Amino acid sequence: MEVMNGSAEIICVGTELLLGDILNRNAQFLARQLADLGIPHYYQTVVGDNPVRIKRAVAIACERARLLIFTGGLGPTPDDLTHPTLAEFFDVPLVEHGAILQDIQAKFAQRGRAMPESNRKQALLPEGAEILPNPIGSAPGMIWQPRPGLIVMTFPGVPSEMQGMWQATAVPYLQQQQWVQGVLVSRTLRFWGISESALAERVASWLGQGNPTVAPYASRGEVKLRITARGTSQADAAALIAPVETELRRISGLDCYGSDDDSLASVVGEQLRSHHQTLAVAESCTGGGLGELLTTIPGSSAYFWGGIIAYDNSIKVALLKVDPDQLAQAGAVSATVAEQMALGVKHQLGTDWGLSITGIAGPHGGSPGKPVGLVYIGLATCDGQVHSRRYQFGDTRGRDWIRHVSRCSALDQLRRALLASTLSD
Amino acid sequence: MEVMNGSAEIICVGTELLLGDILNRNAQFLARQLADLGIPHYYQTVVGDNPVRIKRAVAIACERARLLIFTGGLGPTPDDLTHPTLAEFFDVPLVEHGAILQDIQAKFAQRGRAMPESNRKQALLPEGAEILPNPIGSAPGMIWQPRPGLIVMTFPGVPSEMQGMWQATAVPYLQQQQWVQGVLVSRTLRFWGISESALAERVASWLGQGNPTVAPYASRGEVKLRITARGTSQADAAALIAPVETELRRISGLDCYGSDDDSLASVVGEQLRSHHQTLAVAESCTGGGLGELLTTIPGSSAYFWGGIIAYDNSIKVALLKVDPDQLAQAGAVSATVAEQMALGVKHQLGTDWGLSITGIAGPHGGSPGKPVGLVYIGLATCDGQVHSRRYQFGDTRGRDWIRHVSRCSALDQLRRALLASTLSD
Repeated sequence: MEVMNGSAEIICVGTELLLGDILNRNAQFLARQLADLGIPHYYQTVVGDNPVRIKRAVAIACERARLLIFTGGLGPTPDDLTHPTLAEFFDVPLVEHGAILQDIQAKFAQRGRAMPESNRKQALLPEGAEILPNPIGSAPGMIWQPRPGLIVMTFPGVPSEMQGMWQATAVPYLQQQQWVQGVLVSRTLRFWGISESALAERVASWLGQGNPTVAPYASRGEVKLRITARGTSQADAAALIAPVETELRRISGLDCYGSDDDSLASVVGEQLRSHHQTLAVAESCTGGGLGELLTTIPGSSAYFWGGIIAYDNSIKVALLKVDPDQLAQAGAVSATVAEQMALGVKHQLGTDWGLSITGIAGPHGGSPGKPVGLVYIGLATCDGQVHSRRYQFGDTRGRDWIRHVSRCSALDQLRRALLASTLSD
Repeated sequence: MEVMNGSAEIICVGTELLLGDILNRNAQFLARQLADLGIPHYYQTVVGDNPVRIKRAVAIACERARLLIFTGGLGPTPDDLTHPTLAEFFDVPLVEHGAILQDIQAKFAQRGRAMPESNRKQALLPEGAEILPNPIGSAPGMIWQPRPGLIVMTFPGVPSEMQGMWQATAVPYLQQQQWVQGVLVSRTLRFWGISESALAERVASWLGQGNPTVAPYASRGEVKLRITARGTSQADAAALIAPVETELRRISGLDCYGSDDDSLASVVGEQLRSHHQTLAVAESCTGGGLGELLTTIPGSSAYFWGGIIAYDNSIKVALLKVDPDQLAQAGAVSATVAEQMALGVKHQLGTDWGLSITGIAGPHGGSPGKPVGLVYIGLATCDGQVHSRRYQFGDTRGRDWIRHVSRCSALDQLRRALLASTLSD
């Protein structure tokens, strides 16, 4: 089999993109996939639901790419024109596929409905095209070589359908056609409590590597390192990643909290679950956001019992038993109040751990001594200790950011304490 | 002055877009702006930091548009090539602008730093181009007519800088050049508790109008109607919107909760503030998300005192004083438990209102009688009443969605009760 050279072009079809009604997430997904697969890609085009303009875009793309990837325009409405327009451009007839028709009818039947006549057009593909099956939605896509050395792939505009179809069918096809040399595997390490630049400095010698590559990313206070390896097989690529991961984890120590789909909430949850321990939270400036984050994890009721949102100071005294004199003296945003909140909620809810947040999320309420972004996080531990940490998140990134990094920092503080308690077991 | 006809093309320059490292939010922003201004726009192009390919994209765009809007490639690094490449394409020299240089130097001086030599290139624009000032970042853009009937605008890739520059300089310029006929004003009405299709049906006769236009949008359970009017002045356009807004509000009644930047949390907050009343929340399946949403509003401590996250049933009994027998009999997800939670938190925190949520967010824990997506919301009112409502959100859209629409539905239930209590005052 000949090795195909050349590049890909992403062509997103949809007037809603030209109106700015939706964000073009499909282009980003496909771009990253192409980068990961090592397929060059130099242009992206967005065009509306207009057959003349779609054909112009195809004509241009054929001149500069050998793999055209379309999203959108596969639905049942008169606006959905991708397949008929491509057939017209390459001057071949549309052919009805009985298998597609049956599949669409079966999907409607499952919901107890008859297929509307308008869906019939979704069974039409240009002659010679193969079906690119859509396990979720009604519209399939296609894989087509309309002329030698040119591949056209079409996907629906719905991101979840497009992504599933890409992974299940398009990637294996490209591998088989030798567009992809070998297999690409990546692994993301996740960090909290270290800045992107500090981490990049620590792992600097790994960032210039060829295979595997290591690249840092940062978002909302979290830093990630993505390790990507190309190998002849899944196992081969994984074997390239393993020693790099081990070394990066060794260098970064406790700042690395997990990998891939882990989150601080899931990692802390796993720790509590394995210790058979329970947690309660006391929240002031986050207003419930810490509890909300913990309970994003299904099954979190096994270890998270609940908490007290003490937004008003009177609630800190009444429900969390914070000493009113110390509250008045030190102020609500102080180490002593954070510690009393953590102890209070642990005691009130009868859990092993109590975790508290009190701070100034802004934009108002700051003072020279206690500026916006000042946050104390308190932790009452399972062995009866209590301590707190002071954070200064600054006021430049706003209230939402301060509240989010506060709750993540609280989880991170608990994570490190749970690790320490494991080590001392 | 001649009225310019023709269409715009958005050209986003940046290899990071081709690698999928960033989402193309600039294209969406500009697309919506062009739609709002009534400027036709048929193609968007993304191209990497490569002068040959940028020139190819410009050549194509010149054939099909008369207003080329560039984002990206204005920074100080060797990768930033938009201005020199455009100068080369249109065959004019680059000219250094002393005013830009001084502005960049002043911005560095403010931070106590000297301008690095690499920033000097940002002061170079093609001969004949006007400066498009950047009040935030170092890189200015330009407005240029390289040939009669063709306008080129360039913006940095940083969305906040691009958006500010677009609004402050580009829009007035386009108005002055008569690309925009008059002024465009839009107003968004916000709805909760009605589906997009039901609302569209109720306001059907307004959806086909010309000026103002009315368009429905839906996201995460919320429905919006955007009214957009074109007028000769701000006041003229606003005068066109006012009667349509009044009529849409009349038709939709209480389902319309606000407009523009309002949120359910801000509207409920304003109601409580004007009543001088206070609120506490009791949360089970949302785990703190309702409190989190309420406290996104700065100053919410004036009316939101706090709450109890009763994720575990023992907390419902211990802290919210839910009757353990009734809890065992009716189950945690029931009308009676929702009502006792609302009453309990109101009593424990001493507030005027108590609002509660108990439900099955899934993906596990459902049963035939109590499926995933079943949620009860309880409300203890300021006049000593308590009632609850049963919601069935279904299991198809997942845990996060169920939790989000639950907390919004709780705020909406409170909003309607506050409205009723105002009417009965």
